[in-house]
Amino acid sequence: MTKNQKQLNIGFQGIAGAYSEKAAIAYFSDQRFHLKAFPSFSNLFEGLTKDIIDYAVVPIENSLAGSIHENYDHILNNDVWISGEFKLTIEHSFIAAKNSRLHDITHVYSHPQALSQCSEFLKSLDVEICPYFDTAGSVEFIAKQKNKAFAAIAGAHAAEDYNLSVLKNSIQDNDNNMTRFFIIEKRKSSQEETNTTGSDRHDKTSLVFALRNLPGALHKALSIFAIRDIDLTKIESRPLRSTPWKYYFYLDIDGGIQDKRIKKAIEHLSEITSFQKVTGSYPSSKT
Amino acid sequence: MTKNQKQLNIGFQGIAGAYSEKAAIAYFSDQRFHLKAFPSFSNLFEGLTKDIIDYAVVPIENSLAGSIHENYDHILNNDVWISGEFKLTIEHSFIAAKNSRLHDITHVYSHPQALSQCSEFLKSLDVEICPYFDTAGSVEFIAKQKNKAFAAIAGAHAAEDYNLSVLKNSIQDNDNNMTRFFIIEKRKSSQEETNTTGSDRHDKTSLVFALRNLPGALHKALSIFAIRDIDLTKIESRPLRSTPWKYYFYLDIDGGIQDKRIKKAIEHLSEITSFQKVTGSYPSSKT
Repeated sequence: MTKNQKQLNIGFQGIAGAYSEKAAIAYFSDQRFHLKAFPSFSNLFEGLTKDIIDYAVVPIENSLAGSIHENYDHILNNDVWISGEFKLTIEHSFIAAKNSRLHDITHVYSHPQALSQCSEFLKSLDVEICPYFDTAGSVEFIAKQKNKAFAAIAGAHAAEDYNLSVLKNSIQDNDNNMTRFFIIEKRKSSQEETNTTGSDRHDKTSLVFALRNLPGALHKALSIFAIRDIDLTKIESRPLRSTPWKYYFYLDIDGGIQDKRIKKAIEHLSEITSFQKVTGSYPSSKT
Repeated sequence: MTKNQKQLNIGFQGIAGAYSEKAAIAYFSDQRFHLKAFPSFSNLFEGLTKDIIDYAVVPIENSLAGSIHENYDHILNNDVWISGEFKLTIEHSFIAAKNSRLHDITHVYSHPQALSQCSEFLKSLDVEICPYFDTAGSVEFIAKQKNKAFAAIAGAHAAEDYNLSVLKNSIQDNDNNMTRFFIIEKRKSSQEETNTTGSDRHDKTSLVFALRNLPGALHKALSIFAIRDIDLTKIESRPLRSTPWKYYFYLDIDGGIQDKRIKKAIEHLSEITSFQKVTGSYPSSKT
């Protein structure tokens, strides 16, 4: 990335203080950018296809909770292209009013997943657990309530956004908590051709397909990559809504779209698929 | 199944009127049984392992929305055995007070998934959409409110449970809406040996495994089944919480656990897995 470019408009789902916002800031740190929050993932993808934003930063998978399946569907159903990935370590903080102390807290608000990821810390307190639709949203909520008995669980950066204090950092049970984000842009006709692989760059390609009705069809599809020594880094299945108990398969494979082996494999794959689409090619994220 | 057996205790997640309750009633229709509702899937699995219930009826996959991933985790983490499957067609109904008419409705409550599955019908009305945590829960809610301007979306049977009326049946956009349930019991030491396959019965087996670090490991795993002509009916991946970006794979395969090919394949699989467990073997459901 080079400096002095035009200001980019970057979208994320949620409100100020969301982990997606933190990922966007870290990924685009050497660019000039403006952040735009969208209430839902549907709105975020619409923002991209309607040119309201240049890039969307979209969580695709958490190392403890698994894939965010809704976003697989949005990537398929919108004319978009994955051009980057980023892995963010999730550290949950215990956030409350500036004059509040740990023993003041009687109610803890956060997303059910964040609450369950901090269950050991919460068990050590005598508090009521209050599920909230969003981590950053729970911080905004306790800021508005101005009650020193209320705490929220979110990223430490959310405390600053709402002028609150962090009572304790790193309260999660498991330190292997990471979220993988895709950096997504609007699809351009030339994208599948113009991705360039630098010699020191490790690229990945994402694709989605539905298989024809053949015995052992998924095994055949994976063979197409295995016989070319192309490694699979992720497989995900999502329902094919038109046909119950049939699936779209989403693969992430090791190698850029310009790699001849990958090109040949994708060509070969079309012999056994009823549908296929390359959804992006991007440098692999360093964790 | 034979009649005049002891009364079975059957558990489901949700409240009276839930689709899981409907599936339980249909599956055990020729038995004597008592139904018990559990507030969460965790509680339901605990009820099973603590012998409070004999069977749990657990949704595992919806043909439009995809897998209910939480339940894959519960099947792995509890000492249970899948002994049946059942497919229920989901028909959403528009439910309101007995004296209410379609033009009276101003607010519609339901689970976000049900609301989105009826979006075409809802667009034809001039109403406010109100997400609720549960379909049957939204029916209970409007029954308590006694407001003829409120409607809920759930199965028609829920209207009877709460003394309300169905204003319109089959309001879903897509008729391919089916949910697949597993019938789960507590694991007994002899289960993997005692499953018997009748000559006219089409059985399936479910298993979960984690792969050793080998190139093309998933392809190798699927080859083990493919070379024995064993068909895969479902594959699902879930995170291995101890190691980011490593996965448990859940397979459903065609054939009962007593089938020699299946036994050999599972033995062969152990050569490349770091963990594996057969989670059940059961007659395939007729849709």
